[in-house]
Amino acid sequence: MSAPRWPRLTVVSPGLIGGSIARGARVRRLAREVVVVARHDAAVRAVLDAGAADTGTTDLAAGVAGSSVVVLCAPVGALPGLIRAAWPHLAPGAVLTDAGSVKRSVVAAARECPVRAGVAFVGGHPIAGSERSGFEASDPDLFEGRLALLTPTSDTPEAAVAAAAALWEGLGSMVRRLSAETHDHLVAHISHLPHLAAYALVTAADVDALPLASRGFVDTTRIAASAEALWTDIFRENRGPLLDALTRYEAILHRWRELAARGDWATLEAELGRARDVREKLA
Amino acid sequence: MSAPRWPRLTVVSPGLIGGSIARGARVRRLAREVVVVARHDAAVRAVLDAGAADTGTTDLAAGVAGSSVVVLCAPVGALPGLIRAAWPHLAPGAVLTDAGSVKRSVVAAARECPVRAGVAFVGGHPIAGSERSGFEASDPDLFEGRLALLTPTSDTPEAAVAAAAALWEGLGSMVRRLSAETHDHLVAHISHLPHLAAYALVTAADVDALPLASRGFVDTTRIAASAEALWTDIFRENRGPLLDALTRYEAILHRWRELAARGDWATLEAELGRARDVREKLA
Repeated sequence: MSAPRWPRLTVVSPGLIGGSIARGARVRRLAREVVVVARHDAAVRAVLDAGAADTGTTDLAAGVAGSSVVVLCAPVGALPGLIRAAWPHLAPGAVLTDAGSVKRSVVAAARECPVRAGVAFVGGHPIAGSERSGFEASDPDLFEGRLALLTPTSDTPEAAVAAAAALWEGLGSMVRRLSAETHDHLVAHISHLPHLAAYALVTAADVDALPLASRGFVDTTRIAASAEALWTDIFRENRGPLLDALTRYEAILHRWRELAARGDWATLEAELGRARDVREKLA
Repeated sequence: MSAPRWPRLTVVSPGLIGGSIARGARVRRLAREVVVVARHDAAVRAVLDAGAADTGTTDLAAGVAGSSVVVLCAPVGALPGLIRAAWPHLAPGAVLTDAGSVKRSVVAAARECPVRAGVAFVGGHPIAGSERSGFEASDPDLFEGRLALLTPTSDTPEAAVAAAAALWEGLGSMVRRLSAETHDHLVAHISHLPHLAAYALVTAADVDALPLASRGFVDTTRIAASAEALWTDIFRENRGPLLDALTRYEAILHRWRELAARGDWATLEAELGRARDVREKLA
């Protein structure tokens, strides 16, 4: 087994994602010491009892001190505040990154921090997760074979991007770079809108229809079992792109309603066929 | 093993559903002879080569003659014509039933057939399926543990309902009775609208976003890989209830758009939380 890449790696907020990073980093020996920072002693204890980290603390400044890589895994709305709070305590040469589902707000918060030589921020977002949340649902292999998106800016040092990429590649992911703006637009389509749509399908369903749910309904609405606080936070942080995607979705539903209302089934069938073609390629 | 319940059972149109009924009936010895009726010789041959039936024909009249139970498994739009075509050839004491996803049109077509002593129709709909279609996807255990809905009318003889129930129970399903009107309303909510919504999510997705698809998107849109001709047929046959369900869905999306636009995140979160509660009880 090769030597650990870093002496110290810190994971802030060990829930589903943070817990999985800590566990994965330990299993794969990405750092000599994996440190977790949680808000409450009980959460720190749960992580240490599970053997998911070497040390833990509720003190952010102490937890990030001396770490080569610090990953913030709190809900997206809390990330700007955590970036500002962690920034002055980062060691020279440290890379601060995050795992939030929205990137513009996070990248903007980092950009407003005072320049510190040798300290850099790289926005990150692993395309992995679950409708479950919390440390109990964490899994060292959660990122295996998944994409991890990085959103460096033109100011981000290449060495910092390489360190963030090494983290995700070390956890088994494939890394792709894109701008924060492009990221937020694309995930609004592929992730945020589908969550809103799934919550809405459950809400629209007549309660008497629920006992008739087939596997189709169960799969289509699985993500509507996701924690509503986390998703409201994501929707708030990505409101503009989400509303753009929703506008597009509503226009398609409206168009299909009109085709059905006037009995133009051939056109509807052709449009459904194009969707099927696209979906079948996804596998 | 007990003796077969019926001397002869006929399955018309052996695709995913019909093929699964024929296979299941053979495996479970529900009838001494399982007959399939398909439109083309090649389809009949494929079923017989797979050992999914005892005999097969392209002649509907010959295929239903002498059968105790005849199950029509064609797309819903073709069922009224098949009911009219099969009706004069049914044996005395025979029960004609179907597996269509929409019931009003089918029940109405049967009601218009001339009264024949000892011959009865019972509408049926197994809540089982797949985004795949065709005989190749058929499975003798497809109905195991699933619901089968029957939609008898006040005129349907109890013995005929019992025979249709015995078919589905014999295939491993649990039977529930409801009116054709109630059926069509409920499945519009739990099945037809979710299919339309899934096709629309794929259609709305920016093509550049597709490579970022997570398991959430893949599951939410799995049913958008379903055959568009079958689903257009279902949407056409159940247009009224589908448009009612779509109206409700669009109103919820519109409401959530307004909550997001005016920043009322607390109300949105509460509504998403109610959806999560409902969805968590399903699985």
